[in-house]
Amino acid sequence: MMKLYYATGTCALASHIALEEAGAAYTTDRLDFKTNQQNSPDYLKINAKGRVPALVTDKGVITETPAILAFIAQSFPNAKLAPFDDAFAFAQVQSINNYLCSTVHVCHAHKGRGYRWATEETSFADMKRKVPETMSACFALIERDLLKGPWVMGEQYTICDPYLYTISGWLEGDGVDLAKLPGVVAHRKRMQERPAVQKVVSEEKALAA
Amino acid sequence: MMKLYYATGTCALASHIALEEAGAAYTTDRLDFKTNQQNSPDYLKINAKGRVPALVTDKGVITETPAILAFIAQSFPNAKLAPFDDAFAFAQVQSINNYLCSTVHVCHAHKGRGYRWATEETSFADMKRKVPETMSACFALIERDLLKGPWVMGEQYTICDPYLYTISGWLEGDGVDLAKLPGVVAHRKRMQERPAVQKVVSEEKALAA
Repeated sequence: MMKLYYATGTCALASHIALEEAGAAYTTDRLDFKTNQQNSPDYLKINAKGRVPALVTDKGVITETPAILAFIAQSFPNAKLAPFDDAFAFAQVQSINNYLCSTVHVCHAHKGRGYRWATEETSFADMKRKVPETMSACFALIERDLLKGPWVMGEQYTICDPYLYTISGWLEGDGVDLAKLPGVVAHRKRMQERPAVQKVVSEEKALAA
Repeated sequence: MMKLYYATGTCALASHIALEEAGAAYTTDRLDFKTNQQNSPDYLKINAKGRVPALVTDKGVITETPAILAFIAQSFPNAKLAPFDDAFAFAQVQSINNYLCSTVHVCHAHKGRGYRWATEETSFADMKRKVPETMSACFALIERDLLKGPWVMGEQYTICDPYLYTISGWLEGDGVDLAKLPGVVAHRKRMQERPAVQKVVSEEKALAA
């Protein structure tokens, strides 16, 4: 059985939802970031990067959200979470998930994790101040070009949806004006109506309480 | 026929090499970053993000390096550039390319593109000073855990190889001590012996001259 290592409030939520949508048999292990559990010797043996998510499979560990999401989609083809039989359509799915990972998540991370890329408190404050601007720009592009509706890729729900949902959940905290993002807000509501999303979100909340 | 938009000295080199390795029929169009051509109205119609690479196919445009690389691998299966028939092995390829994209390239970008995430000159200088440390840490992980040898994934050359080669080409400029990275250095030399790499590198240099 697979095991997902996650922490509440992180991008690991996307993989958690995808496992549930796929009907996978899996367990979870919640790391406590407040006690820096992601950098404990035991966890570093699982993921030397000290990050979540990490998915333990019977063949080994997978890290990086877009890779985990694609693995889930490919392992559970009946759930139709990615168009593996169409190289161009699959590339579009991957392109959106890579944008979320390497640009959008990175912009968000400058709010609280500036120490990854700088040393001075003044730099951290400067980075933090810019987050509303960078996240608004990212989501303006998502609203205008990437989110086809009703789901990210159009009529078919894919592994892009739990990932966008996860990151769009950070927008209020990042100081982004949601009034300019009606499509993103509608997508979020649509996601919250899905049983898999409700189950995973309430489970993460209950464990965090 | 496909067309790759690239700029010299950028991560687009990885996609350029992969197209050549795959034996694809393609043309290229070189953007001049010095004149900000990537943000010209004509190019923004192709890639609204104002970045390279962008691969124009007969079905539409693909952006984001890991997505382009996987598309090339899937479109030219005879070149065996990714193990699409093995979900776990493919996830490992994707995981490495996502790490290069969302962590390693992002660390490097803080040297010269701090304006993406901050506003003050003092912050840019602070970010720049930290690049040798962050890039050294990324490549210590690559050397120890990710690069199996002789190629990234082991005996089989994959889409991870041109991507690692591209980013490892930035190490001297990023102030990283190559003496601690014998595996990465050997990989670079191995890459430079490949006809596809020699052809693409000399072509990009000739056009840049």
